[in-house]
Amino acid sequence: MGRLTFWFEFASTYSYPAAMRIDELGAAADVEIVWRPFLLGPIFKAQGWPDSPFNLYPAKGEYMWRDLARICDAQLLSFQRPDPFPQNSLLAARIATYGMEQGWGRAFSKAVYKAQFGAGKCIDDEGLLKGLVSDAGADPSEALQDAASQEVKDVLRQSTNEAQTLGIFGAPSFVTESGELFWGNDRLEQALRWAKGR
Amino acid sequence: MGRLTFWFEFASTYSYPAAMRIDELGAAADVEIVWRPFLLGPIFKAQGWPDSPFNLYPAKGEYMWRDLARICDAQLLSFQRPDPFPQNSLLAARIATYGMEQGWGRAFSKAVYKAQFGAGKCIDDEGLLKGLVSDAGADPSEALQDAASQEVKDVLRQSTNEAQTLGIFGAPSFVTESGELFWGNDRLEQALRWAKGR
Repeated sequence: MGRLTFWFEFASTYSYPAAMRIDELGAAADVEIVWRPFLLGPIFKAQGWPDSPFNLYPAKGEYMWRDLARICDAQLLSFQRPDPFPQNSLLAARIATYGMEQGWGRAFSKAVYKAQFGAGKCIDDEGLLKGLVSDAGADPSEALQDAASQEVKDVLRQSTNEAQTLGIFGAPSFVTESGELFWGNDRLEQALRWAKGR
Repeated sequence: MGRLTFWFEFASTYSYPAAMRIDELGAAADVEIVWRPFLLGPIFKAQGWPDSPFNLYPAKGEYMWRDLARICDAQLLSFQRPDPFPQNSLLAARIATYGMEQGWGRAFSKAVYKAQFGAGKCIDDEGLLKGLVSDAGADPSEALQDAASQEVKDVLRQSTNEAQTLGIFGAPSFVTESGELFWGNDRLEQALRWAKGR
């Protein structure tokens, strides 16, 4: 059985359709999927981007929203453009980091994507996130307290550093055990083929 | 029968695998393919990029070359990274613009991509281009003379303006008759489905 690491950032648009299908595709392909939240902000800043490239380059941004709407339509996913974009994903990423250790991280992460890009909600809203933690089967107050611990902050920071070391510059990214990097929702099937040795 | 316009720039890496398969895919899908050469340089400059984004952002560039090698391998296309990159594509684009009017533009354009990304050759070499024109069945001296005419220069400049007006910011791009824009070799199948009304 192969293994594929799914590197995702909550503010990343194309991570939404990837997150909503990766577990099923992985199961069908007999490939174990490892979910790793990280932050794109520091990586974008290192490339000289103070904002999302979709905001910095309007033609590219306009295209992305249309492309994403088409993809969601084909995948039967609801789609609503969140405002503002990109969202502040720090708190959600910390909760997901903690949740991955606790076993409810995937359900929570999918719910965050659905709230943000399926319903246009703001994912820096503590009340919203508490509700999603609760829906994922965990205690919201405890989760938010633990997510704010120095340990969880450090794990997330290390994940972001590790992503950068792996050559990751965008999300979603997929990395095989041999270090082969794939970028973009549209590379998911190819990444799965590589993960199982093609 | 639907119609899809294929906007390509010779210096664009991902236009190579698209150019090598679009005519067969179009024929299979009963979609007429219209080839339109244009120049990305002026569009990149308008976005504030003095160079290819693959050079400006090294992590992205390194990934692109690996990704392209994988795609060429899967498509059974030979691949060799040209040096320098990006190539000066102006003369080739003028010849292709003229060749499209004359009926040998597609064969010539595919040969340019093959020489550049399949064999690593420099496509600003007049001798090379003359050979490719000749292989495509036209008279090389006449073609190069006509390609240098003010009329051809103007047509290419207008094409680049038209591309920008359509919202094009990269290559390859595909545009349906209703103005639906698709960017990237990996969107070709989807673009063909839209061109035939899905």
